[in-house]
Amino acid sequence: MESVQKTANRIRRLEVKGARNVAIAALQALKLLAEGTKSKSREEFLLEISGAKDLLFSTRPTEPLMRNGVNWVLLNVKWSEKKRVKDLGRVVSSSTCEFLRSLEISRECIAENGSKRIRDGMVVFTHCRSSTVTHMIRKAKQTGKDFEVICTETRPVFQGRNTAKEMLDLGLKTTLIVDSAARSVMKETDLVIVGADAITSEGNVVNKIGTATIAVLAREARVPFYVVSELLKFDPETLSGEYETIEERGRDEVWKDAPKKLKVRNPAFEVTRRDYIHGIICEEGVVPPHIVVEIMQRKYSWIF
Amino acid sequence: MESVQKTANRIRRLEVKGARNVAIAALQALKLLAEGTKSKSREEFLLEISGAKDLLFSTRPTEPLMRNGVNWVLLNVKWSEKKRVKDLGRVVSSSTCEFLRSLEISRECIAENGSKRIRDGMVVFTHCRSSTVTHMIRKAKQTGKDFEVICTETRPVFQGRNTAKEMLDLGLKTTLIVDSAARSVMKETDLVIVGADAITSEGNVVNKIGTATIAVLAREARVPFYVVSELLKFDPETLSGEYETIEERGRDEVWKDAPKKLKVRNPAFEVTRRDYIHGIICEEGVVPPHIVVEIMQRKYSWIF
Amino acid sequence: MESVQKTANRIRRLEVKGARNVAIAALQALKLLAEGTKSKSREEFLLEISGAKDLLFSTRPTEPLMRNGVNWVLLNVKWSEKKRVKDLGRVVSSSTCEFLRSLEISRECIAENGSKRIRDGMVVFTHCRSSTVTHMIRKAKQTGKDFEVICTETRPVFQGRNTAKEMLDLGLKTTLIVDSAARSVMKETDLVIVGADAITSEGNVVNKIGTATIAVLAREARVPFYVVSELLKFDPETLSGEYETIEERGRDEVWKDAPKKLKVRNPAFEVTRRDYIHGIICEEGVVPPHIVVEIMQRKYSWIF
Amino acid sequence: MESVQKTANRIRRLEVKGARNVAIAALQALKLLAEGTKSKSREEFLLEISGAKDLLFSTRPTEPLMRNGVNWVLLNVKWSEKKRVKDLGRVVSSSTCEFLRSLEISRECIAENGSKRIRDGMVVFTHCRSSTVTHMIRKAKQTGKDFEVICTETRPVFQGRNTAKEMLDLGLKTTLIVDSAARSVMKETDLVIVGADAITSEGNVVNKIGTATIAVLAREARVPFYVVSELLKFDPETLSGEYETIEERGRDEVWKDAPKKLKVRNPAFEVTRRDYIHGIICEEGVVPPHIVVEIMQRKYSWIF
Amino acid sequence: MESVQKTANRIRRLEVKGARNVAIAALQALKLLAEGTKSKSREEFLLEISGAKDLLFSTRPTEPLMRNGVNWVLLNVKWSEKKRVKDLGRVVSSSTCEFLRSLEISRECIAENGSKRIRDGMVVFTHCRSSTVTHMIRKAKQTGKDFEVICTETRPVFQGRNTAKEMLDLGLKTTLIVDSAARSVMKETDLVIVGADAITSEGNVVNKIGTATIAVLAREARVPFYVVSELLKFDPETLSGEYETIEERGRDEVWKDAPKKLKVRNPAFEVTRRDYIHGIICEEGVVPPHIVVEIMQRKYSWIF
Amino acid sequence: MESVQKTANRIRRLEVKGARNVAIAALQALKLLAEGTKSKSREEFLLEISGAKDLLFSTRPTEPLMRNGVNWVLLNVKWSEKKRVKDLGRVVSSSTCEFLRSLEISRECIAENGSKRIRDGMVVFTHCRSSTVTHMIRKAKQTGKDFEVICTETRPVFQGRNTAKEMLDLGLKTTLIVDSAARSVMKETDLVIVGADAITSEGNVVNKIGTATIAVLAREARVPFYVVSELLKFDPETLSGEYETIEERGRDEVWKDAPKKLKVRNPAFEVTRRDYIHGIICEEGVVPPHIVVEIMQRKYSWIF
Repeated sequence: MESVQKTANRIRRLEVKGARNVAIAALQALKLLAEGTKSKSREEFLLEISGAKDLLFSTRPTEPLMRNGVNWVLLNVKWSEKKRVKDLGRVVSSSTCEFLRSLEISRECIAENGSKRIRDGMVVFTHCRSSTVTHMIRKAKQTGKDFEVICTETRPVFQGRNTAKEMLDLGLKTTLIVDSAARSVMKETDLVIVGADAITSEGNVVNKIGTATIAVLAREARVPFYVVSELLKFDPETLSGEYETIEERGRDEVWKDAPKKLKVRNPAFEVTRRDYIHGIICEEGVVPPHIVVEIMQRKYSWIF
Repeated sequence: MESVQKTANRIRRLEVKGARNVAIAALQALKLLAEGTKSKSREEFLLEISGAKDLLFSTRPTEPLMRNGVNWVLLNVKWSEKKRVKDLGRVVSSSTCEFLRSLEISRECIAENGSKRIRDGMVVFTHCRSSTVTHMIRKAKQTGKDFEVICTETRPVFQGRNTAKEMLDLGLKTTLIVDSAARSVMKETDLVIVGADAITSEGNVVNKIGTATIAVLAREARVPFYVVSELLKFDPETLSGEYETIEERGRDEVWKDAPKKLKVRNPAFEVTRRDYIHGIICEEGVVPPHIVVEIMQRKYSWIF
Repeated sequence: MESVQKTANRIRRLEVKGARNVAIAALQALKLLAEGTKSKSREEFLLEISGAKDLLFSTRPTEPLMRNGVNWVLLNVKWSEKKRVKDLGRVVSSSTCEFLRSLEISRECIAENGSKRIRDGMVVFTHCRSSTVTHMIRKAKQTGKDFEVICTETRPVFQGRNTAKEMLDLGLKTTLIVDSAARSVMKETDLVIVGADAITSEGNVVNKIGTATIAVLAREARVPFYVVSELLKFDPETLSGEYETIEERGRDEVWKDAPKKLKVRNPAFEVTRRDYIHGIICEEGVVPPHIVVEIMQRKYSWIF
Repeated sequence: MESVQKTANRIRRLEVKGARNVAIAALQALKLLAEGTKSKSREEFLLEISGAKDLLFSTRPTEPLMRNGVNWVLLNVKWSEKKRVKDLGRVVSSSTCEFLRSLEISRECIAENGSKRIRDGMVVFTHCRSSTVTHMIRKAKQTGKDFEVICTETRPVFQGRNTAKEMLDLGLKTTLIVDSAARSVMKETDLVIVGADAITSEGNVVNKIGTATIAVLAREARVPFYVVSELLKFDPETLSGEYETIEERGRDEVWKDAPKKLKVRNPAFEVTRRDYIHGIICEEGVVPPHIVVEIMQRKYSWIF
Repeated sequence: MESVQKTANRIRRLEVKGARNVAIAALQALKLLAEGTKSKSREEFLLEISGAKDLLFSTRPTEPLMRNGVNWVLLNVKWSEKKRVKDLGRVVSSSTCEFLRSLEISRECIAENGSKRIRDGMVVFTHCRSSTVTHMIRKAKQTGKDFEVICTETRPVFQGRNTAKEMLDLGLKTTLIVDSAARSVMKETDLVIVGADAITSEGNVVNKIGTATIAVLAREARVPFYVVSELLKFDPETLSGEYETIEERGRDEVWKDAPKKLKVRNPAFEVTRRDYIHGIICEEGVVPPHIVVEIMQRKYSWIF
Repeated sequence: MESVQKTANRIRRLEVKGARNVAIAALQALKLLAEGTKSKSREEFLLEISGAKDLLFSTRPTEPLMRNGVNWVLLNVKWSEKKRVKDLGRVVSSSTCEFLRSLEISRECIAENGSKRIRDGMVVFTHCRSSTVTHMIRKAKQTGKDFEVICTETRPVFQGRNTAKEMLDLGLKTTLIVDSAARSVMKETDLVIVGADAITSEGNVVNKIGTATIAVLAREARVPFYVVSELLKFDPETLSGEYETIEERGRDEVWKDAPKKLKVRNPAFEVTRRDYIHGIICEEGVVPPHIVVEIMQRKYSWIF
C-alpha cells in the first residue's frame, strides 16, 4: 500500500500533472500493489485494492481517465472467477497493461486522425499544455506539413511556455501571447486545437481555465475549434446528473504577495459547451461532442 | 526645450502612464517652455512650440487626450492676435490651465454620473487600471453604497493588482482573478466598467488588451458594459479614415527568458466595437458610443 | 392647491393611466391652480407652483412626459420677468396651452409618419395599450390600407383587451393571444409597433413589462420592431447616470387569493435596449434610438 | 368497452391532465377491459382492444406517452402465441402493470438524476406544471438543499399557481410572476427546468405554450435550460416526417366575454428546438436532446 | 475494362451529373465488367475490379455515394469464399443489384418522410438541382397538397433553371430568382430543402456552392432548413480526419471571355455546418445531422 | 424641355447608370433648359423647371442624389429674389455648377478618407460596381499600397465584371467569383467595401441586391464592412416614414427564354441594416450609419 500512498501524494501535490500522466501513475501503483500483496484471500485482496482505489480517488476532485482506468482493473478482478490471490494479482497486472496499451493506441489514432486536420500553411492556435495535442502536432509536422503555432502563456502557471518550447523543438514557427490577446490573433488563426480533462454526458468538455473564452472567440470569428481527447476521459458520473467539480487552486499560484484582505479566486478548469466545439478528435475519429455518450455505450459500456 | 525633452523621454520610457497623466505632463512641460522661452518674435515662438508639439507627439503612437490638449494650446496661440512673445506665453499658460481645469471638472462629472450606475449590493467587474474608473468607484463608495469589485490581474504588467489595492483601500470587498477566468465570474457580475485610451469616430473604444474579450463575454451573459472616458480622448484622426495605431510593446514584458527563436507578440491595446458598449460615461452624461463624434462637433468643434 | 392634490391622487391611484393622459391631467391641474391662485407676490407664486410640482412628481416613480411638461411651465414662469401674479398666471396658462398643443401636433406627426410604415396586407403586432399607437393605426386605416392586427392580452391587467376592442372598432381584422404565445405568431408578423413610457439617454425604451421579450423574439425572426413615442418622453435624469425606476405594483393585480407565503413580483415596466429597436417614430420622423439624446439637444435643449 | 369510453371522455374533456396521468388512465382502462372482456376468440379479442386503442388515440391530437403505452400492450398481445382469451387478458394485465411500474421507476431515476443539478442557494425557474418536475424538486429538497423557485402563472389556465402551491408545501421560498416578466428575473436565475409533452426525432421538445420563449431568454442570459422527461414521451411518428400536432384550445380559456368579431388564438403547446436545450434529464441520465432517437433505438426499439 | 474506362470518362467530363447518377453509372459499369471478364482466377479477378475501382475513384475528388457503392461490391467479392471467376462475377452482379435496389428504396422512403414536412399553402425554397428533392416534392404534390416553390438560378451553370422547369411540370406555382436575392425572399419562405453530395462524420453537409449562405439566411429569419439525402452519402474518410475535398471547376463556367490576368475562382461545393441544419431527411426518417455517424455504425457498419 | 425629356428617357432606359451619373445628367439637362428657356416671367420659369423636375423624378422610383440635386437648384431659384428670367437662369446655372463641384469634392474627400482604411497586404472584397468605390481604391493604389481585390460577378447584369476590369487596369491582383461563393472567400477577406444608392433616416443603406447577404456573412466572420457614399444620397422621404422603394426590373435580365408560366422576380436593390455596417465613409469622414440623419441636419438642413 505504500507505493499507492506515495503515488497518491505525488498526484495530490501536483507533482504528476496532466490527465494521462495521472492515470498512468495510478495504474502503475496499483500494479505494484498487486505484485507485492500480502493478502491471503480473494476477500482480503478485494478489500486491499478497494482501499487503494479510495486513496487514489481522493487525490483530485475529478480525473475521469484515472478513475475509469482504476475501475477497469477492479471490474476485471471482480469478473474473474479466480480464487487464488496470486491469480488475481495477475488479473490486475494484465488488465493494467491492457489499459495502458489501449491508451497508447488511442493516442496514436488521435494523432493520426487529428494530424489530417492540419493543412499546409495553417496557423494553429492552442491553449495550455496537452501531451495529446503535442503528439498530434508532431505527427502533422512529421508528415511534412509546414504550419505555424500560436500558444497562450496560460496563467497562472504558464504551461503555455512549455508548449511553446515543444513546438520550437518540433521546428515549428511559434508565437506566444498573453491569454487576453487571444482575440487579437483570432482573425489570422485557421484552427484551434485544445486538450481535455473530462467529457460530460451532455457533450461538454472540461479543460484548463480560459478554454471556453477561446471557444467563444473562435466561433465569433468563424474559426473551427477542436478538442483532442481519449474517449475514456468521459465522466460517467455526469450522466447521473453530477456536475463536473471544478478544482480551485491556491492563491499563491496567482499572486505570491497578495494583500491578505484580497480574495484571490483561482479556478483551474472550466466547462466549454458542446455548441462551441466543431468536433472531438478521439480514437474513434472526428465526431460531434453530442454523441460521445452514445459511443461510450457502444464501445465502453462497462464504465456505466 | 529641455523640460519638454525630458517629459517626452519620460513618456516614451513609460515612466508616465495612463492617458490622463501623459496629457497633464505634456501640458505642464509646454507651460514651462512658454514661461522660460527665449524666442524673440511671434514667428520664432510659434516655431518653438510647434517643435515641442512634434517632440511630444513622437513619444507614443496615439495619445489623443495629450494631442488634443497640446493642439488646444497651439490653437489658442494662433487665434490670439497678440504680437509680443510675453503675451503669447501668457496665452500658453492660461489655455494650459484652462485645459487642465476642464479635465478636472470632466473627471468629477464622470464620477458623479457613473457612480449612480452602481447600486447597493452589486458586483462590479473592471480590467486593468484607470484613474477615472477608480475615482468614479470612490465616489460611489462615498455615497454610502456597499458593493463588491472583481479585478483581473491584467497581464503582462499586472496593473490589475494596483487596482485591487486601490479598491481594498476604499474599503471594498475585492476579488482578483487571472485574465482568462473572466468568463467564470461573468454570471455573478452585475456591471462591467472599464476606462479608455481613445475613442474613434465610429464610436469604438481603444483600451488595454483584453477589454474586447471581456466585452464579448459581458454581452454573452447579458451583463451591461460601460466605458468611462473624458470626451477629449476622441481621436479626430480616425474621422479622416486613420486606423487607431495599436502599440506593440517589448517581449520582455511577457517573458524575460523566452527562447530566442520564439516570437512573442505583445499588443498593448485593442479596439472594442461600439456594439458591445452600453454607454460611454463622460462629462456630458451617459451616451451611446455612436454619437460621440456628433457631441464633439457640438462641444469641441475646434479639434476637427 | 386642492385641484392639484386631487389630480395627484387620481394619478397615484392609477385612475389616470398612460403617459400622455397623466401629463395632460397634471398640466391642466397646474393651469387651474394658476387661474385660482391667491398668492400675493412673484415669490409666493413661485413657491406655490413649486409645491404643486413636488406633489405631482411624487405620484409616480417616473413619468418623464409629465415631468418635462411641468418643468416647461415652471421654466417659463422663471424666465418671465413679469412681477404681477396675474401676469405670471397668464404665463402658466399660455405655456400650458402651448405644451398641450405641441403634444397634439406631435401626435399627429407621429401618426402621419408611422402610418406610412404600415403597408397593405401586413400583419401588425402590438403589446399593451398606447393611445399613440392606436392613433397611428387609425391613420393608416383611414388612408384606405387593409391590414390585420395581433394584440397580446397583456397581463396582469389585460390592457390588450382594450386595444383589441379599439382595433375592432376601426374595422380591422383583429386577433388576441396570451402573452406567452407571442413567439408562436411572430413568423407571420410583418411589423411590431409598441408605445413608450420613457426614453433614456442611451436610447433605450421603457415600456410595459413584456415589451423587451417581444423585441427579442422579433429580432430572432427578422421582424422590424418600432417604438412610437413623443420625444418629450425622453428622461433627462438618465443622462446624468440615473437608472430608470421600474415601478413594482401590487400583488393583487396578479393573483387576488395568492397564498400569503408566496412572494408575488409585479414589475409594471421594463427596459428594451436600443439594439432591438429599428426606429423611434416620433414627431421628428423615424430615427435610430441612439440619437434621441442629440435630437433633444437640438430641439428641446431646455430640458437639460 | 364502457370503461374505455368513459376514460376516453374524461381525457377528451381535460378532466385528466398531464401526459403521465393520461397514460396511466388509458392503460388502466385497457386493463379493466381485458379483465371483463366477453370476446370468444383471439381474433375477437384483438379486434376489441384495437377498437379501444382507436378510441383512446382519438381523444387528443398527440399524447405519445399514452400512445406508446397502449402500443406496448397491444404488441405484447400480438407477440404472445396464446390462443385463449383468458390468457391474452393476462398478457394485457401483466404488460400494463409492467409499463406502469417502469414509468414509476423512470420517475424515480429522473428525480434522482435531476436533483443533483440543483445546488444549494440556487434560484430555479419553472413554467407551467409538471408532476415530474415537482417530484424532482421534492427530491432535491429532501436531500437537504436550500434553494428558491420562481414560477410563472402560465396563462391561460394558471397551472403555475398550482406549481407555486406545491413548492410552498415543500417548504421552498417561492416567487410567482406573470409570464411576460420572465426576462426580468432571468438574470437572477441559475437554472431553468421544465417538463415535456413530447420529444421529436429531431430532438425538439413539445411543451406548454411559453416554453420556447423562456428557452430563448435563458440562452440570451447564459442560464442553463433543462427538460425533464421520460424517454417514452418520444413520438415515433415524427421520425417518419410528421409534424407534432399543436392543439388549439377554446377561446373561453383566454377571454370569457371576448367580442364575437375578435379572433382568439389559443395554442396550448409549442416546440422548443434542441439548440436551446442543455440536456434532457431522463431515466437514462442527462443527455443531449440530439441523441434521444438513438437511445430509443437502443432501449425501446419496439416503438418504431 | 473498356466500359469502366468509358464510364469513368463520362463522369470526369461531367456528362454524368448528380451523386445518384454517378453512383448508378459506376455500379453498372462494374457489373458489365464482371459479366464480360476474362480473368482466369480469383486473384486475377480481384485485381481487375480493384483496378476498376481505382479508375472510377480517380474521376472526382469526392463522391461518397459512388465510393460506398463500389466498396460494397468489392467487399462482397472479398467476403465470398467462391473460387470460380464465374461465381464471383455473380456476386458482383447480385451485390450491384442489391445496392441499386436499396438506393431506390431509400429514395422512396425519403420522399415519403420528407413530403410530410410540406404543408398546404407553404412556400418551399430550394437551391440547385437534386433528383431526390424533386422526387420528394413530386410526392408531396401527388398527395394533393398545394404549395409554391422558389428556386435560385444557381450560378455558374444554372441548374436551378432545370429545377424550375421540373416544378412547373409538376403543376406547381414556381418563382425563380438570382442567387443573391435569396435573402429578399426568405421572410416569405416557410421551408428550405436542399440535397447533398456528402455528409461528414461531424454531421456537416457538402452541397452546391451557395448552400451554406442560404442556411445562414434561413437561420437569421427562423426558417427551417432541411437536407434530403441517402445515408450512404456519408463519407467514412471524414471520420478519420480527412477534409472533404472541394472541387474547383474551370473558369469558363463562370466567364468565357474573362481577361487573362483575372483570377477566376470556381468552387463547386461548400460545407454547411450541422448547426444550421434542422434535420437530415433520410431513409431512416428525419434525424439531427449530429447522429448520422452513429446511425451509420448501426445500419451500415461495413463502410468503416 | 426637349433636352430634359431626352435625358429623362435615357435615365429611364438605364442608358445612364449609377446614382452619381444619373444626378449629373439630370442637373446638366436642367442647366441646358435654363440656358435656352423661352419663359417670359418668373412665374412661367418656375412652372417650367417644376415640370422638368417632375419629369426627371418620374424616371426612377428613388434616386435621392438626383432628387436632392434637383431640389437644391429649385430651392435656389425660389430663394432668389430676382425677377428677370435671365437672372433666374443664371441662378440655375450657378447652383447646378455648385452642386456638381461639391459632388466632385465629396468624391475626393471620400477617396482620401477611405483609402486610409486599406492597408498593405489586405484582401478587399467588393460587390457590384460603384464609381466611388473604384475611385477610392485607385487612391489607395496610388499611395503605393499593395493589396488584392475580390469581386463578385453581380448577377443578373454582371456589373462585377466591369469592376474586375477596372481593378486589373489599376494593376491590382484581382479575383472574380460567382455571387454565391462569397461565404467561401470571406475567411480570407480583410475588408468589405461597397457603394450605396440611398441612405435612410434609420441609417440603413440601399444598394444592389446581394449587398445585405454579404454584410451578414462579413459579420459572421468578423470582417469589417464599410459603405462608401456621398451624404447627399440620404433620402429625406424616409425620415417622414416612407419605405425606400425597391425597383423590380424585367425578367429578361435574369433569363431570356424563361418558360412563360415561370414567375421571375428581379429586385434590383435591397436594404442593409445599420447593425451590419461598421461605418459610412463619406465627405465628413468615417461615421456610424446611425448618425447620418443628424449630420444632414447640421450640414444640409435645406434637404428636409
